[in-house]
Amino acid sequence: MDLHGDELTDAVVTSFDGSLEPRTKEVMSALVRHLHAFAREVDLTEDEYFLAIDFLTRTGQISDDKRQEFVLLADTLGLSMLTVGLGSPDAEGATESTVFGPFFVEGSPEVPNGADLANGAPGQPCLVSGRVLTTKGEPIAGATVETWQADEDGFYDVQKDGLTGPQNRGHLKTDADGNYSFWAVKPVAYPIPVDGPVGEMLRAGGRGWMRPAHIHFMVTAPGYHRLITHVFEAADPYLQEDAVFGVKDSLVTEFTEHPDGHYSVSYDLVLAEETP
Amino acid sequence: MDLHGDELTDAVVTSFDGSLEPRTKEVMSALVRHLHAFAREVDLTEDEYFLAIDFLTRTGQISDDKRQEFVLLADTLGLSMLTVGLGSPDAEGATESTVFGPFFVEGSPEVPNGADLANGAPGQPCLVSGRVLTTKGEPIAGATVETWQADEDGFYDVQKDGLTGPQNRGHLKTDADGNYSFWAVKPVAYPIPVDGPVGEMLRAGGRGWMRPAHIHFMVTAPGYHRLITHVFEAADPYLQEDAVFGVKDSLVTEFTEHPDGHYSVSYDLVLAEETP
Ligand SMILES: [Cu+2]
Ligand SMILES: [Fe+3]
Ligand SMILES: [Fe+3]
Repeated sequence: MDLHGDELTDAVVTSFDGSLEPRTKEVMSALVRHLHAFAREVDLTEDEYFLAIDFLTRTGQISDDKRQEFVLLADTLGLSMLTVGLGSPDAEGATESTVFGPFFVEGSPEVPNGADLANGAPGQPCLVSGRVLTTKGEPIAGATVETWQADEDGFYDVQKDGLTGPQNRGHLKTDADGNYSFWAVKPVAYPIPVDGPVGEMLRAGGRGWMRPAHIHFMVTAPGYHRLITHVFEAADPYLQEDAVFGVKDSLVTEFTEHPDGHYSVSYDLVLAEETP
Repeated sequence: MDLHGDELTDAVVTSFDGSLEPRTKEVMSALVRHLHAFAREVDLTEDEYFLAIDFLTRTGQISDDKRQEFVLLADTLGLSMLTVGLGSPDAEGATESTVFGPFFVEGSPEVPNGADLANGAPGQPCLVSGRVLTTKGEPIAGATVETWQADEDGFYDVQKDGLTGPQNRGHLKTDADGNYSFWAVKPVAYPIPVDGPVGEMLRAGGRGWMRPAHIHFMVTAPGYHRLITHVFEAADPYLQEDAVFGVKDSLVTEFTEHPDGHYSVSYDLVLAEETP
């Protein structure tokens, strides 16, 4: 009965032997082993244990339909990017993935190609366009391109009170040549929300909380892997210190400033074929 | 910029280099390494990632001033017992520690020795007594003995609606000879709350959710380590399968049944001296 040292870990691991699914046993036993190894390595104190309980509780309680603090925690601990990397198809030439982030919301409006998604959000107008392609360079017609991004003040629509409709958020279908295009505002670097538990962690860790300017994309088409990614602006000063470790060189591109003050950016999104 | 494989983990670990306290860096870097090693070992899928986000969010949201689901999660993953073991003084002869559990509440009533804490809770009356001692067997006068336990139906007072006062919960001071005594009800095995996320995990894991009958104690006295423990009933059928891995042989003792139907149990609580 007395469970000392490794016997305790073994007992907890073994307790999952009767799992309904083999995967549950696999995941939980690995989780228990690494969690226990962590606690042993740092000789976790009871004060730290209760601090963690309190931190996690508040992380759950500050989350709601507009804010997902656990996603933000996973993002800032690099777990989101790690999962993205593990799940990405190894398809030569496909656009790389990056973090989903906490600001996606279901049910964005469907708009026609060329629509203005800014919907009054502050910022420089920016024309975003490109093609959705196969890894062989062929256009994918009818692909769904979902996009969302922050405005010039660094806020997503869901972070703002009193809006009557979405801003810089929507989805559209590529045309027969795989083209997509929409207007939004030029994205800027923005701070992730640091008024909650994740902010406490970042401050205690002496870490930054900026994300370099980016546009979010989620692209789906039947027969292809879903692509979740960003397009980053090449001129952004925070590219080297993204708070969520999401930057990949292949996702960084130039935004062009035009004489009338508007910007444009073109980026092709290449989907990996689903292997049956 | 491109962070692949271990480079990602290194980047996250390094991001804590500027921590305000050295301990923050130590704990967070170990946490990140073990968390990433876990995700890599099981090749964590995005579905599982989102399942975990949802699970943790609901675990926080179901918690309130009367229910602490993250403590229950830590308990059922053996992390609480592990922390208890790491934090326990290695004092020969001191009473062993076990989990704190989620049902302690601050501000229990102070009662005199011999008081009845049952306060109308259903169950067989049970006289609980013993002495608080040093490891040399000397009595500790004026020690604070805090106790709490479930009733015959398996419920703690904080789990019941409509009570006007605490049941089976209180604290008292030992007398000049180190004695403590109080009446409560005879504890019974009880299920931990399985109507929340932890219950989902236990069912998926094919695990049980019973705790063998026990009385909680928290004992404090100036100059001694705080003792958090249980006294378990020797006759309980669940001693070998405690859902939170809290049983230690030295904490198991006989409860005596008396002709008039009441029970009694005597257990001495031995505190480790604080080493300056
Ligand atoms: Cu590990
Ligand atoms: Fe973003
Ligand atoms: Fe209990």
